[in-house]
Amino acid sequence: MSLVAIDWGTSSLRGALLDDDGKVIEERLAPRGILSVASGGFGALFEELFGDWMRDRRNTCLISGMAGSKQGWVEAPYCACPAGQSDLAQKIIEIEPGRIAVVPGLSDMHDGVPDVMRGEEVQVFGALALGGMGDGLFVLPGTHSKWVSVKAGKVTGFRTAMTGEFYALLSQHSILARTMEPNARLDEAAFLEGVARADNGRGLLHNAFGTRTLALFDRMPARETSSYLSGLLIGEELRSQSFHSAGELVLIGTPALTQRYRLALGRSGKGLAVRSFGAEATWAGLHALSQVIR
Amino acid sequence: MSLVAIDWGTSSLRGALLDDDGKVIEERLAPRGILSVASGGFGALFEELFGDWMRDRRNTCLISGMAGSKQGWVEAPYCACPAGQSDLAQKIIEIEPGRIAVVPGLSDMHDGVPDVMRGEEVQVFGALALGGMGDGLFVLPGTHSKWVSVKAGKVTGFRTAMTGEFYALLSQHSILARTMEPNARLDEAAFLEGVARADNGRGLLHNAFGTRTLALFDRMPARETSSYLSGLLIGEELRSQSFHSAGELVLIGTPALTQRYRLALGRSGKGLAVRSFGAEATWAGLHALSQVIR
Repeated sequence: MSLVAIDWGTSSLRGALLDDDGKVIEERLAPRGILSVASGGFGALFEELFGDWMRDRRNTCLISGMAGSKQGWVEAPYCACPAGQSDLAQKIIEIEPGRIAVVPGLSDMHDGVPDVMRGEEVQVFGALALGGMGDGLFVLPGTHSKWVSVKAGKVTGFRTAMTGEFYALLSQHSILARTMEPNARLDEAAFLEGVARADNGRGLLHNAFGTRTLALFDRMPARETSSYLSGLLIGEELRSQSFHSAGELVLIGTPALTQRYRLALGRSGKGLAVRSFGAEATWAGLHALSQVIR
Repeated sequence: MSLVAIDWGTSSLRGALLDDDGKVIEERLAPRGILSVASGGFGALFEELFGDWMRDRRNTCLISGMAGSKQGWVEAPYCACPAGQSDLAQKIIEIEPGRIAVVPGLSDMHDGVPDVMRGEEVQVFGALALGGMGDGLFVLPGTHSKWVSVKAGKVTGFRTAMTGEFYALLSQHSILARTMEPNARLDEAAFLEGVARADNGRGLLHNAFGTRTLALFDRMPARETSSYLSGLLIGEELRSQSFHSAGELVLIGTPALTQRYRLALGRSGKGLAVRSFGAEATWAGLHALSQVIR
């Protein structure tokens, strides 16, 4: 029997067919995030994309991510921190009893302001399983980066940083876009200049404007300004998180993103060990969770 | 003889006819910022909107703002700080000799990163004239807020903060927009909650996300979240500027905006005196400058 593991996010949908040991038999990717699915249309789309994987009646399916949000397939209320795998397992919401279930996200609270995530918790549990770890500080860069603390196998707390979304807003919709070359490749020197700049104590609202004036005064070529802005934002994210006592930091994300964090940490996180995981963490997390539920 | 004083910005155009003492005879406002004017179309538009004010051949015209930028009527290169009124006067660019001229903006440099403004310098000189001051710290809130230091009548330096533009981006284009009531009125309590929050040392990238989660968890009504976000951003701007030794701070802007800064300063700028000027600062600045040129 196999596990159909699904990571159904806001803008994309990934699925994997896993064997009993968690090994990936096949992977599928579709540009069908929950924002592209009409309310009530989730079941039919699931059948269309993954129906063949579910033909074998012994196969089960676990879905993580925004599919469990109010705007998703079925709402799976957040599980409050601290939370381990068994807490998540107890709060799954079954769509087809014994066969298809949605994993809840996690919530945390900081001085009266809630924080939430959906999907990243599964990646963290996957990285724990893959790395044979029980504790750690995990960083999941993205549209909304998550900084997740784990102790004895439980997520004790986490914080969101809107780094990727700020980057998209500023590079596409702000005045900075006018002196920025779209789709320029990462320029490491300009990126690190931005990271260093973020530490000057003058704040992001001021530093961001420099992305425009550096180009305006021909002090930085337009093809480098997107890297500089990316460095400013990731530098600002690192500046605001406390991780220097962590010893090790575990990055989970695409190589393109984790590379930038490694670069930035190389500058500011002296003596910090950095480990990275990619998409495999999602599949390992859903597989580990399926073992707990079983 | 009269002065035709023009403040020609990115998105709007204001003009005033001033008598020899600087008193406003008539004011005009048009939604014709430089972005709405085709290259080469500035002269005709000026004639259409202000031609009657220029019929008297003794009248002269001074234009400040983005009309002096590369994308404007005629480029007036930035004047480097420190700069006083006479420095500006020497660098005006005449469009019609002896009759119509454009005022340059100012530039400053912070550790190799340039900073610029166009139009705000005239408002600062106007406030100096109106208030009978020679020194001070001036804050001009807006899309791009400017913090301007003046000593002995000269602008010694300034810093930009993209506060207004960040607010527009986040409240219109980000995920925060989904739980925000557009055009909601200022809620002072929510605004001050945001200002206080900005001081928690966790950074804007993290704090901004709370605007969404507070609404998501029904901890703040949707009609209050735009005020909260505004407070977060203005609080972040204040946090990053050093003004506590200033004694007095002079705000120049619309009453709606200066009111927010007064509120925020009331919380964090204990013991700081705050004075405000509005549009009259622009006219007073252009009038004072015309006296220097004459």
